[in-house]
Amino acid sequence: MNYKSINFQKKLEKFDDLWAPKVIGEMNDYQFKVVKFAGDFVWHKHVNTDETFLVLKGKMNIEFRDGKVTIEEGEMYIVPKGVEHKPFTDSECHVMLIEPRGIVNTGDAGGELTAENDVWI
Amino acid sequence: MNYKSINFQKKLEKFDDLWAPKVIGEMNDYQFKVVKFAGDFVWHKHVNTDETFLVLKGKMNIEFRDGKVTIEEGEMYIVPKGVEHKPFTDSECHVMLIEPRGIVNTGDAGGELTAENDVWI
Repeated sequence: MNYKSINFQKKLEKFDDLWAPKVIGEMNDYQFKVVKFAGDFVWHKHVNTDETFLVLKGKMNIEFRDGKVTIEEGEMYIVPKGVEHKPFTDSECHVMLIEPRGIVNTGDAGGELTAENDVWI
Repeated sequence: MNYKSINFQKKLEKFDDLWAPKVIGEMNDYQFKVVKFAGDFVWHKHVNTDETFLVLKGKMNIEFRDGKVTIEEGEMYIVPKGVEHKPFTDSECHVMLIEPRGIVNTGDAGGELTAENDVWI
């Protein structure tokens, strides 16, 4: 059989839209998604699940109601379920999200930055 | 509050033993583990879960009964549940494993390469 690894850079070259996660793999009922961030996202939370941000290139921040975290290339951060957060960056940043299938990017907030879910590349 | 990202390289500098995954974070009931591979692991499978291998440094291979895959830095591979596999490397490789809490490294095979489970660093 022909087995093939999943290359993050090659997946990231396939799209340019911001804040729009693309699925690159599934493990049980969890999905791996790559996404490009630049500027400010919206405040939101995911009521039923933790959410992992793994930085592939650049640097991102997550603001919380009582602080913030900066995540650089080669680092990750796991936002606990129910915790309000607002991702933002100073310049374009490439990220892998890991979370259960079916999670919408804007969580409970909705709005115009809500991306189509379960888009595979 | 003081929020802190998880840096893969800093975690990897904390140990030298091979084939012994160390937990660096949890997302719901899943764990992120870093591990150093060199040489040959044992044939095994995980009956109840998929398993993700994400290469942080170097290059690893996974042999299957009917083929193999090579995973380089910046790539990942998800081994489906129940599929027999044997990781091996030509030289030392640093990997992040992502899988449910409680999964033992040698799966159904056991043996001397079975590592202590749920060791946090």
